[in-house]
Amino acid sequence: MLPISTTRTVLSYRKGELQEVQDIVVTEFPVTIFLNDEEFATVVCTPEYMEDMVVGFLHSEGVLRSYEDIRSVTVDESQGFVYVETDKLVKLNTRLYNKRYITSCCGKSRQSFYFFNDARTVKTMKEQNVTLTVDDCFRLMSEMQAGAGLFQETGGVHNAALCDRNGVLLARTDIGRHNALDKLYGHCLKNGISVADKIVVFSGRISSEILLKVAKIGCEVVLSKSAPTELALEMADELGITAVGFIRHETLNVYTHPERIQNSRS
Amino acid sequence: MLPISTTRTVLSYRKGELQEVQDIVVTEFPVTIFLNDEEFATVVCTPEYMEDMVVGFLHSEGVLRSYEDIRSVTVDESQGFVYVETDKLVKLNTRLYNKRYITSCCGKSRQSFYFFNDARTVKTMKEQNVTLTVDDCFRLMSEMQAGAGLFQETGGVHNAALCDRNGVLLARTDIGRHNALDKLYGHCLKNGISVADKIVVFSGRISSEILLKVAKIGCEVVLSKSAPTELALEMADELGITAVGFIRHETLNVYTHPERIQNSRS
Repeated sequence: MLPISTTRTVLSYRKGELQEVQDIVVTEFPVTIFLNDEEFATVVCTPEYMEDMVVGFLHSEGVLRSYEDIRSVTVDESQGFVYVETDKLVKLNTRLYNKRYITSCCGKSRQSFYFFNDARTVKTMKEQNVTLTVDDCFRLMSEMQAGAGLFQETGGVHNAALCDRNGVLLARTDIGRHNALDKLYGHCLKNGISVADKIVVFSGRISSEILLKVAKIGCEVVLSKSAPTELALEMADELGITAVGFIRHETLNVYTHPERIQNSRS
Repeated sequence: MLPISTTRTVLSYRKGELQEVQDIVVTEFPVTIFLNDEEFATVVCTPEYMEDMVVGFLHSEGVLRSYEDIRSVTVDESQGFVYVETDKLVKLNTRLYNKRYITSCCGKSRQSFYFFNDARTVKTMKEQNVTLTVDDCFRLMSEMQAGAGLFQETGGVHNAALCDRNGVLLARTDIGRHNALDKLYGHCLKNGISVADKIVVFSGRISSEILLKVAKIGCEVVLSKSAPTELALEMADELGITAVGFIRHETLNVYTHPERIQNSRS
């Protein structure tokens, strides 16, 4: 196992003095994904749950359609290489990875998507499987934060949790925004966990990238401590996702699809 | 000009009530860069200073060597396309963009670099042009934050400033971590501003990506409000860069190359 943080001697300034102290610093680890021995992408991450991360990432990019299509996943921790073997690669989506989706060629639908693979793989939530009260939102956010532990010390990492109304089912931490969500997604795919009635709770900003990950995982609600972007909210509107942000100290904002959020106190 | 934020009606929960209020949300805008009419990369950004951002990005990736090598830059705001024409494209670095640098093939040097282009373009700081006191660090961070304005309201954006000892010379904001630095870099390249004696002040975490940008710009000091990662600090050690983090409320940590930081009060 690679360390997810390390101790380092730093020169710390406190009360007018510069002094050597021991400090905890998070590690950052580059992982290169090989698809049938061809270099596909490099992701910099917190080095734990790497197999789940790669499985989640490849599914969310649409280069794999189903967990059963994977023949093997081999993690070489010493080099930071993950080798994925499959007979059922979606070759078009491999070629289109990170390629711009030119909306003017493709009619009026999905105007807000900017990558081909997002437009091709993202799911629209057509049902309402989840209803939360405002108090549920506060409680789930607190529970995720309480579990974040060590990383609150070192700062700057993103925490994500898959929850149902009753609490946190699975929590992951990563220095990379989308990795934490890929780790959740990969775990669900591997273990056949249904996500239709689940909620994603995230410590960071709801950017378009994060909103798309939530949609690809297949969840209909995302709760965040931070701000959303306008592009993410346009996508949430279109995809039927409820986005709740700035969940802090008994205040929050419901940005999109408020039909899933009830005021428990009125 | 595209708006960098917008007003949106949200359902806000305050003092037990869910009420519609007007809220400011940052925009997020996908920009696709075409190099001699070929799609090169898509970056999601805050839509201002896009030309500078693209110029800075292409130089930091090493696909352009000098600002004089650019024949034209055309920004199509309606589509989010930026067209760069040049007769002097560094074709190898174009092909190596985001490709993993396999250190075992390349001897023992530059062990911490994971992308080819980083290993190929990054500069090592061999001189000491900058000396700061601890008070300078606090003052520069305060000055940058005081100038951040609107975005402190909406949350979740990154602020970066190019400074000298006396204060902030140039400040940029972006929702994307590295874009704010690319915008600073592009401005300096366009205007022939020397960076050797300048300091980068950044609101976010010092990740390896940010440390590499600082090195590519050519600055020898980076000051941050947040935490660094271990990989970024290994790179800073190797490249001769002074990294100072957690600059908050009269406390800070000097992580690497402390020879440039003096305690003004001892």
